[in-house]
Amino acid sequence: MEVDLNCDLGESFGRYRIGADEAMMQYITSANIACGYHAGDPLVMDRTVRLAAKHRLGVGAHPGLPDLMGFGRRAMQLSSEEIEDYILYQVGALAAFARAAGVELVHVKPHGALYNMAVKDMELARAVVQGIARFSREFIVVCLAGSPMIEAAEEAGLRAAQEGFADRAYNQDGTLQSRKEPRSVIHDPQRAAERAVGMVRDKVVVAHTGEEIPLHVDTICVHGDRPTAVQIAQVIRRELEASGIAVKPMGSFL
Amino acid sequence: MEVDLNCDLGESFGRYRIGADEAMMQYITSANIACGYHAGDPLVMDRTVRLAAKHRLGVGAHPGLPDLMGFGRRAMQLSSEEIEDYILYQVGALAAFARAAGVELVHVKPHGALYNMAVKDMELARAVVQGIARFSREFIVVCLAGSPMIEAAEEAGLRAAQEGFADRAYNQDGTLQSRKEPRSVIHDPQRAAERAVGMVRDKVVVAHTGEEIPLHVDTICVHGDRPTAVQIAQVIRRELEASGIAVKPMGSFL
Amino acid sequence: MEVDLNCDLGESFGRYRIGADEAMMQYITSANIACGYHAGDPLVMDRTVRLAAKHRLGVGAHPGLPDLMGFGRRAMQLSSEEIEDYILYQVGALAAFARAAGVELVHVKPHGALYNMAVKDMELARAVVQGIARFSREFIVVCLAGSPMIEAAEEAGLRAAQEGFADRAYNQDGTLQSRKEPRSVIHDPQRAAERAVGMVRDKVVVAHTGEEIPLHVDTICVHGDRPTAVQIAQVIRRELEASGIAVKPMGSFL
Amino acid sequence: MEVDLNCDLGESFGRYRIGADEAMMQYITSANIACGYHAGDPLVMDRTVRLAAKHRLGVGAHPGLPDLMGFGRRAMQLSSEEIEDYILYQVGALAAFARAAGVELVHVKPHGALYNMAVKDMELARAVVQGIARFSREFIVVCLAGSPMIEAAEEAGLRAAQEGFADRAYNQDGTLQSRKEPRSVIHDPQRAAERAVGMVRDKVVVAHTGEEIPLHVDTICVHGDRPTAVQIAQVIRRELEASGIAVKPMGSFL
Repeated sequence: MEVDLNCDLGESFGRYRIGADEAMMQYITSANIACGYHAGDPLVMDRTVRLAAKHRLGVGAHPGLPDLMGFGRRAMQLSSEEIEDYILYQVGALAAFARAAGVELVHVKPHGALYNMAVKDMELARAVVQGIARFSREFIVVCLAGSPMIEAAEEAGLRAAQEGFADRAYNQDGTLQSRKEPRSVIHDPQRAAERAVGMVRDKVVVAHTGEEIPLHVDTICVHGDRPTAVQIAQVIRRELEASGIAVKPMGSFL
Repeated sequence: MEVDLNCDLGESFGRYRIGADEAMMQYITSANIACGYHAGDPLVMDRTVRLAAKHRLGVGAHPGLPDLMGFGRRAMQLSSEEIEDYILYQVGALAAFARAAGVELVHVKPHGALYNMAVKDMELARAVVQGIARFSREFIVVCLAGSPMIEAAEEAGLRAAQEGFADRAYNQDGTLQSRKEPRSVIHDPQRAAERAVGMVRDKVVVAHTGEEIPLHVDTICVHGDRPTAVQIAQVIRRELEASGIAVKPMGSFL
Repeated sequence: MEVDLNCDLGESFGRYRIGADEAMMQYITSANIACGYHAGDPLVMDRTVRLAAKHRLGVGAHPGLPDLMGFGRRAMQLSSEEIEDYILYQVGALAAFARAAGVELVHVKPHGALYNMAVKDMELARAVVQGIARFSREFIVVCLAGSPMIEAAEEAGLRAAQEGFADRAYNQDGTLQSRKEPRSVIHDPQRAAERAVGMVRDKVVVAHTGEEIPLHVDTICVHGDRPTAVQIAQVIRRELEASGIAVKPMGSFL
Repeated sequence: MEVDLNCDLGESFGRYRIGADEAMMQYITSANIACGYHAGDPLVMDRTVRLAAKHRLGVGAHPGLPDLMGFGRRAMQLSSEEIEDYILYQVGALAAFARAAGVELVHVKPHGALYNMAVKDMELARAVVQGIARFSREFIVVCLAGSPMIEAAEEAGLRAAQEGFADRAYNQDGTLQSRKEPRSVIHDPQRAAERAVGMVRDKVVVAHTGEEIPLHVDTICVHGDRPTAVQIAQVIRRELEASGIAVKPMGSFL
């Protein structure tokens, strides 16, 4: 049994700081690094890529919508061409910092509304995958476990990493419950860790409505921007390993 | 005798159009393509790179200051780290579109105030070159002919292309006269062409004060954003060739 | 019989130019001036307000979505609070230039996707109106003729100006046909003028499907950003007046 | 003896948080609220103006350079017209939120590099003042104590508030020592408070070189964005009042 732990990093901007990036890097195996559209700037990207390289993490791009004011969380009506080119632009920019730091990009995980749009809409999923594939078909695309986005990745010849969320509530259909709902975010480290272990070992997660949902996960997302983020990551990592699950970069087993 | 003809292209943004890009491509040999900071957006970059590839031009990045409202023409007090990372970011983004179009980037030419800052200040010139070199030491750096920026490029192990301006007036010290001065921009195609020929054949240009300035040029800049731009480019190209000067991409002879 | 002629102006940005603003001002009676979000910048706003004042036009704000790259034409999923505050911000900014120029703002017309979102969705229409009303209940809100947005304006105690489009095709339900459809934009000045006259005199417009749609218009929108824009405006104005219709600022009769 | 205590507030942006705004409001008498260029967004502005009104603070605009990535701290080469219009734009936008909250703007304090540029350069100072004056000659302009900017304000018929900095080291000429120098920022609340009291009671501050500099201050700036900010503000307020100095809004005595 094996799984990757990924986290969105490099989401600071100018004088603004978000996330305990370096502390999180102790516990995760893959870094999704913002690319300057929804968050991040060239200095933050440079610093974060170097730090991730130093911690020997799998380095990936985390492209988002061109909406810094909304942190890339507000759906926008974009054409496939726009999505494709926005992703190619951001992946290229991050790849430059990776190249300068002597590391290869391994994966791409779309951010926020872009991820949510791609999860629900096959045409948008294809545009996302196309933007990634035009840079390289060697990339792994991080997709919500069980979503049609996986098919979009595979039909373009890219590997998909199925992603589970240890600290988010699930709907019965396997999608994430909206952050606007009460109790949609899990703050208790132990509970989050149990869910993570359950996803990997038992291939199941319990929806907020009570049903067990079968799912296969290659990577588990932990969030880095909450007061308890580092503690949650630490407990999840510890509990996964205590359950005999190897925690390692997605690129090593996908 | 040989020389390259370069032009700043891809400077449209969203619904805003600048420049007769495709018409210019008939007469030039190298395209400097804006990267989204002072001008350009991912769709414009994608389209412009493809067009330049179709016309078999040398494709280069044209990074600028993060100042769309000022079109990258207003000096900003940036640290060396900021300049370096802003360039690396933009070069990476453009390189992604080049890669997707199956072409290699050949050169980098900083835009507007960034170019002017680098021409005058060795520390800034080194920061510019460092941003370029961190992506690749194979790039040619386009530098004002005779400027210390050439030294900055060469000390970092990059080739420099010395650039002359056929349609701009020169100061006695070999720098360009400010656009704010009357007659600093030359609109007459024939006169611009004669200056271009003089730079290459006689290795000299006449300053607005009347003195002959010796200079060596590898590439001549023609501007694409004026009513007479295409005509000027056409006449320059014709007159260069009529004078027995081979007009070809800088990458073929530097 | 009387009607206002309005046009979106001040949509240039930095070095980018859109629209023949000054030429249009000869034929229209109300100027909707962009406020820096979807288009426009402080210099453009200052210049456009002064010009509009000089031409004795009714001056209004033309706020848009925070999406310069998409020219405010891409729907974004915003909360009512966001819409309200984005409008208040932009109206305030434009009001400063009006105040400096010694004129009062008369009306507000939302731009592009913001207008289209408000036309279809009563909650968004209320948010738009609320953003306007928080600045002043004296403003006239420009609304698509026959749309529920009129009700939103009136329930908040603001006057609504019902707007018709002389150069756009209508759907059978009184909404505008998407610009993506062929023939959705009317380029023939004479035909546009006939539609304008028909709207005011006969209170009717013919849909692209052939049906007559009854409508009442207080103001007719003419577009300023097409090659034939000035000519269309001129012909519309001439034909309206030739039909005995007084063309005057909406503030004078609403 | 009387003095105002001012603080830069509303410098959060989207999901990014800076400053303990509400806590600071307990101790200060004037709020300088960011206007969306160097920091702040419409939601933050709306919320901050309402909070400041609730705390009965003097509300002022804190316009900055159009450089969110650099937090308005990097000098930019702008024309007088650009400065004037950027200020007018931002003051107008903030005035809209003040109007909606039922309060009047009292003062304007330029931010960061804009303040520093205006302090040193009479032409820029005049452009700043002109931008403010075009909105209203009733505004108080906050100026570095002893700087020529005061003259620029007064020659345009505006009141100037002379500002001292309790937590910043001074150069011998009365300007602030650059933040890049060690010990240029004072973190010890008691020491900052002593300097504040000395400025008001003794009309003097000690430069980092040891000399006493005479100065008159109407308002003292306390910073809201440091870990000890609230404590410093609290101690300064307490010590000022313990020294018999009335702490009240600048508008009440200027």
